[in-house]
Amino acid sequence: MYNIELEQALEVALKSVRAIEDTEKIPLEDSLGRILGEDFYAPMDNPPFNRSPLDGFAIRSKDTTMASEDNPIAFKVIDKAYAGIPSNKTLGSFQAIRIMTGGKMPLEADCVIRLEDCIENGNNMVLKKSLQPFENYCYKGEDIKSDTLLIEKGTKLSAIHLGVLGSMGQSSVKVIKRPKIGILVTGDEIIEYSSPLIDGKIYDTNGILLGSRLKELGFDYIKIDTEKDDPQSVAESILKNIDNLDILITTGGVSVGDKDIFHEVVKIINANQLFWKLKLKPGTPAMYSILRDKPILSLSGNPFASLVTFELIARPLLEKISRDSSVKTIRTKAKIMEDFNKTSKNRRFIRCIYEDGKVKLPKGGHSSGMLLTMKDCNAFVDIEAGNTGLRKFDEVEVVIL
Amino acid sequence: MYNIELEQALEVALKSVRAIEDTEKIPLEDSLGRILGEDFYAPMDNPPFNRSPLDGFAIRSKDTTMASEDNPIAFKVIDKAYAGIPSNKTLGSFQAIRIMTGGKMPLEADCVIRLEDCIENGNNMVLKKSLQPFENYCYKGEDIKSDTLLIEKGTKLSAIHLGVLGSMGQSSVKVIKRPKIGILVTGDEIIEYSSPLIDGKIYDTNGILLGSRLKELGFDYIKIDTEKDDPQSVAESILKNIDNLDILITTGGVSVGDKDIFHEVVKIINANQLFWKLKLKPGTPAMYSILRDKPILSLSGNPFASLVTFELIARPLLEKISRDSSVKTIRTKAKIMEDFNKTSKNRRFIRCIYEDGKVKLPKGGHSSGMLLTMKDCNAFVDIEAGNTGLRKFDEVEVVIL
Repeated sequence: MYNIELEQALEVALKSVRAIEDTEKIPLEDSLGRILGEDFYAPMDNPPFNRSPLDGFAIRSKDTTMASEDNPIAFKVIDKAYAGIPSNKTLGSFQAIRIMTGGKMPLEADCVIRLEDCIENGNNMVLKKSLQPFENYCYKGEDIKSDTLLIEKGTKLSAIHLGVLGSMGQSSVKVIKRPKIGILVTGDEIIEYSSPLIDGKIYDTNGILLGSRLKELGFDYIKIDTEKDDPQSVAESILKNIDNLDILITTGGVSVGDKDIFHEVVKIINANQLFWKLKLKPGTPAMYSILRDKPILSLSGNPFASLVTFELIARPLLEKISRDSSVKTIRTKAKIMEDFNKTSKNRRFIRCIYEDGKVKLPKGGHSSGMLLTMKDCNAFVDIEAGNTGLRKFDEVEVVIL
Repeated sequence: MYNIELEQALEVALKSVRAIEDTEKIPLEDSLGRILGEDFYAPMDNPPFNRSPLDGFAIRSKDTTMASEDNPIAFKVIDKAYAGIPSNKTLGSFQAIRIMTGGKMPLEADCVIRLEDCIENGNNMVLKKSLQPFENYCYKGEDIKSDTLLIEKGTKLSAIHLGVLGSMGQSSVKVIKRPKIGILVTGDEIIEYSSPLIDGKIYDTNGILLGSRLKELGFDYIKIDTEKDDPQSVAESILKNIDNLDILITTGGVSVGDKDIFHEVVKIINANQLFWKLKLKPGTPAMYSILRDKPILSLSGNPFASLVTFELIARPLLEKISRDSSVKTIRTKAKIMEDFNKTSKNRRFIRCIYEDGKVKLPKGGHSSGMLLTMKDCNAFVDIEAGNTGLRKFDEVEVVIL
């Protein structure tokens, strides 16, 4: 397909990829942000035993029935129960066990009198009020009941989830394997940071930009090295690495010039090109191919353009592959707070600052070669083809990063 | 100080810590999310040379003045300029150089005729329209001018910043050193995940909960091992590790029971206790001490309580120490969408789900021993002391995580 709408491109691309099925067991402390690979059922109750929610004395409520200001009742203190150090005694009539917050309720005890509500006196404790059965009593399984579904498969694990898994004694967690994402930068003009600047060349921006963007979204990436301008070398790098990847993202070489090597690369590796060119700006020449069942998303070499198409196409793909719904780009409506006086022959995405239903445009350049003014932006305005300019307070469609 | 307001505790604690000054040079690709340690001025222009924004022919505008549909003008094509491979020829009268997007403008060329706006014919190119000086011309330094302040000291580096630093040829970046944060869990009842569950014991929740919360905020942490119930052993662990930390967060042992060992620990290590007990729930017994200029924040052993006081006290401290303003907890007003029928003798923080100015309460338990219902929450409602209950649609104060 050639020169298609974004939505059509997304449909084609999403249909061509599968969500990762493989799982792995990893240590609990490494599982933050990972996607749970199975429904997690509570293997135990939490708390795992009936316990006291406060400091006091564990007693039998029936021994307190007659207690009042006028009729203090004395209990014999027969033991102590600390958090972690239970008492193995069973309460008899008018017996009490001193108990601390988190301490296990002794046998026969069905309530706790708060320390400040009674009088301690040597081996005796005296109370002047009656208690209900299970007053100040924290049930076994009150927070979590054994065998209940606690966290569903596909959940992205947060600190709270890890706390819950920890409380369930899980030292390891079964999670979906992370997507292996390759980044390959092409372009004759690109030089590495270690090189001195040569006439007509520029430093690599796309590699670090898209790689860091992947990290911001919670992914790792593999930087794939290649001769940046030679189709044969690029093709060999792809063939060598593709089996070890879930998706390859490339930049550069997808336009129409005779140094736009990606057309030749696709032929050499014998990939199945599903589309080339989108009806939008910037990033028009985006290309998408499949090689050995693996997607290759090839973006413009222009940094801002590569970022826009990364957000628009790579993110939905990564969301599906990784099963991480938090990766989704969010669309919303907003009021634009200033004029934008440009006619958009094609559908156009411009950088903006979105906050509270309002959109501002950054000061400085909007040209797609400019990256700097993107640094304070967090969204794009999606302007439809044929738009003759935006007026202050117009409602616009916004894609939030 | 004893039994003080949260705001007073924060004032005392914040006054006692300093922002980290030390910087380090690290590789660009490791600097995402780090705090820039110096003002970064552009060491070069970007683009570093005048270049063509499109595919076409670089020419002199003055040679096109007479061109029109009726008066086509022919140019002799004398060379090619690719991105990264400049032409070293100088344009003469009615000469053109084929130029690709990103290619360096040849000497004397001051505009570019778009490929689709002219006719290529062997070694000749013919155009039928005149061009303005600097039409289709991208200036050296158009995006970034050498010596301008690009990123201020103290900025948290995003993917865009890394892209900008990359485009400036920076293979390494000077950043503020990360805070070294220790977590030490105490409590007789705590056992490790590797142990079978022993009667009256519970698995460690606070360590993984607060550690993962630190990771969510972008920090690393050091787990400090100790005998969990022995004041002498805890004191020794602290003394051994404190010099290597910027802050130590402990959980457990701060209440009033005779197993609340932290009071004794503070004496053994000879720390300066600045406050103990806050006028709020949950997490009342929070304690704060200084040892050898290092802060020790000691939180309740109850997981939910430790989380609340972590968010309320540890985050502002970490924000100051790390210079990372994104760590700040945000407060806002919201409408509560259901009743909360409890009297709050003390100031009380309850878990909630905040979205778009509205607050919902999670289904299930609010008791401070319960962590599970926190998993869908993203905020706390801050309820003032003496409140007799919240009515649906009441405006409430919300702390967003």
